[in-house]
Amino acid sequence: MARERLTSQQLEEGLATLDGWQVSEDKLFRQLEFKDFVAAFGFMTRVALIAQSMDHHPDWTNVYNRVAIHLHTHDSGGITKRDLELAARIDGLLRG
Amino acid sequence: MARERLTSQQLEEGLATLDGWQVSEDKLFRQLEFKDFVAAFGFMTRVALIAQSMDHHPDWTNVYNRVAIHLHTHDSGGITKRDLELAARIDGLLRG
Repeated sequence: MARERLTSQQLEEGLATLDGWQVSEDKLFRQLEFKDFVAAFGFMTRVALIAQSMDHHPDWTNVYNRVAIHLHTHDSGGITKRDLELAARIDGLLRG
Repeated sequence: MARERLTSQQLEEGLATLDGWQVSEDKLFRQLEFKDFVAAFGFMTRVALIAQSMDHHPDWTNVYNRVAIHLHTHDSGGITKRDLELAARIDGLLRG
């Protein structure tokens, strides 16, 4: 169930509960900007620990103080409940 | 000097001292594959500490066990001595 691709309606409902995520090429996408590299990489380290504990990992890019995150579920070829869960946990980190 | 763009000859000589780096779109590029996410992110953390100490940071992307690194120097619009230095230190980490 958690690995089944969401319907458009499920995805729309999920997005409404998140902060600043959008859908891009069948992935959840969020772009973040931090004060500097230390802040950006510190954030990534916290996400890495959560991702590992969920056994669900982001595709992400870091350029100095910027982090771009893409979430999708390989097995399903799209966005699943697990992606919404990881996105929500990332939002939780950012709210502090 | 360290922030001056390298000449083709300097770049060629530099590349010859490195492991598995190539030049792509005016950046030094290396693609790495690890056993799993923990190994990949562990490597990234070590690179992050070195990069911060050098005040010279990579552009990089991580997808599960894969890490793609691009090095260039923003100020110079190309590859400088600092990029070769960071690449050499990354190679050093990988040699263990």
